[in-house]
Amino acid sequence: MERYDAAILGTGPAGVSAAITLKIRNKNLLLIGNKDLSMKMEKAHEIQNYPGLPAIPGAELAAKMREHLDSMGIEITEDKVSTVYAMGDYFALQGATEMYEASTVILATGVVLAKPYPGEAEYLGKGVSYCATCDAPLYRGKTAAVIGFSPKEEAEADFLAELAEKVYYLPQYTDEVHVSDRVETVREKPLEILGDDKAVALKTSEREIPVDGVFILRESVAPSQLMPGLETEEGHVKVNRRMETNLAGCFACGDIVGLPYQYIKSAGEGNIAAISAAMYLDQKKREAAKKQDA
Amino acid sequence: MERYDAAILGTGPAGVSAAITLKIRNKNLLLIGNKDLSMKMEKAHEIQNYPGLPAIPGAELAAKMREHLDSMGIEITEDKVSTVYAMGDYFALQGATEMYEASTVILATGVVLAKPYPGEAEYLGKGVSYCATCDAPLYRGKTAAVIGFSPKEEAEADFLAELAEKVYYLPQYTDEVHVSDRVETVREKPLEILGDDKAVALKTSEREIPVDGVFILRESVAPSQLMPGLETEEGHVKVNRRMETNLAGCFACGDIVGLPYQYIKSAGEGNIAAISAAMYLDQKKREAAKKQDA
Repeated sequence: MERYDAAILGTGPAGVSAAITLKIRNKNLLLIGNKDLSMKMEKAHEIQNYPGLPAIPGAELAAKMREHLDSMGIEITEDKVSTVYAMGDYFALQGATEMYEASTVILATGVVLAKPYPGEAEYLGKGVSYCATCDAPLYRGKTAAVIGFSPKEEAEADFLAELAEKVYYLPQYTDEVHVSDRVETVREKPLEILGDDKAVALKTSEREIPVDGVFILRESVAPSQLMPGLETEEGHVKVNRRMETNLAGCFACGDIVGLPYQYIKSAGEGNIAAISAAMYLDQKKREAAKKQDA
Repeated sequence: MERYDAAILGTGPAGVSAAITLKIRNKNLLLIGNKDLSMKMEKAHEIQNYPGLPAIPGAELAAKMREHLDSMGIEITEDKVSTVYAMGDYFALQGATEMYEASTVILATGVVLAKPYPGEAEYLGKGVSYCATCDAPLYRGKTAAVIGFSPKEEAEADFLAELAEKVYYLPQYTDEVHVSDRVETVREKPLEILGDDKAVALKTSEREIPVDGVFILRESVAPSQLMPGLETEEGHVKVNRRMETNLAGCFACGDIVGLPYQYIKSAGEGNIAAISAAMYLDQKKREAAKKQDA
């Protein structure tokens, strides 16, 4: 398996900035996220304080950042990493269907603004899942609810419906929904995941829907769920001014590390994280060379 | 005297970013620096990692930032602050000829890359000065050397020459020099300031020049000299992740707080410093209102 120098998770301003700086530093990088970059940026009506680009619509800033990546030959791998494992001298990343390996990892997946649902943490892995592509086979002939926070989750609901007996789709956005006939769209607010030793129903603002599983598809996964052993503080990844986390070789930047949630702040931190990662890689290389000499 | 909500020192990407965000927060701000923004940015051949503006010449990025300031009605006060005094609930700033007052101060003056000359700290105020406009009257009929780190210091040498008997100008850059006939340009490298109880000569790579005073005109003043009581660490202002210094109401951002010296990092930090300053001001306001109620 290819071992990347750095895996960057997230394609908002922090991840994009980190990728650009690592590329300049001549590192072999994997940028995982969406070709749309970031839903939040894409939908921002106008960004007033990104110096040099006054009063720019979010979609336009995203387009400029995509052009910047293109101009440097940086590709985006469209995937969603559910877990990152620190393996000692490298990291293993669990994508929807693939695994990746990298010597360093930069977490830039943004922030989960919503609180987890009651029952979500309790039944995670026992009926609650963050990845339809990963866990769909478990729901063959069963009933599942999909809570989608962006239109791109509709494809996940459709995929699930090919295997499951019954799929409810609960869009948590106002856009029109386009799902296959096999999926029932339910415009209700999820309130709680009910269960005993495993999830058995989704309680909504209107009723209780009996289900075998609930898929919660947010743009980002809570950092504590993303990476075992990662130190967090009030829901954010704890970093120092060099954007180092408590795990050697793991860096974080952007909304995931805390307020203020601002595009230019995230871009600045992405740069710092990239430079710290490059320094870490160079240091490892020197140490390895020294060992060989000895 | 007008009391500003915030005085921002420096017009590089950190200062510009701080000014833009404070303006959005509706704060009454004073931005002190140069209409050229920053010599370093102005002269950068090409900046590759400012996300959204790929491969942009420094001068072009500076022009875009100036336009951004203009579009928001933010003016630049062309002055050089030699000292900032923490007065308790406000700050007093010593400009070349004027004093300013502000409730908060954001230090974004960049970094002094050069080491101080031997004798510089020792004879500061005893023949060594950082401000020709301020101290020229002391050199009426005397001899002074001016060490200039950018062409805009030539005006300072000219001004000094109107009062002093003899002015040597030592440009520390390669551009052609345009000074009046009263100034003698000396292409020599300053090595040390010699003196007894006060400065008496400037030692260069070639000789010792007897002088009554030496003006050292860098783009930025060392932070420890800029503000008494300010905590520094290896020549940089010490800040936490909120860009707070050890002095309440005083924030710092950009190169002055440390590596990496990168435009996007500075812009990101300027944003954080501005938001911290705005929160500090709002907190003070709430406390004042509470006191009035009681």
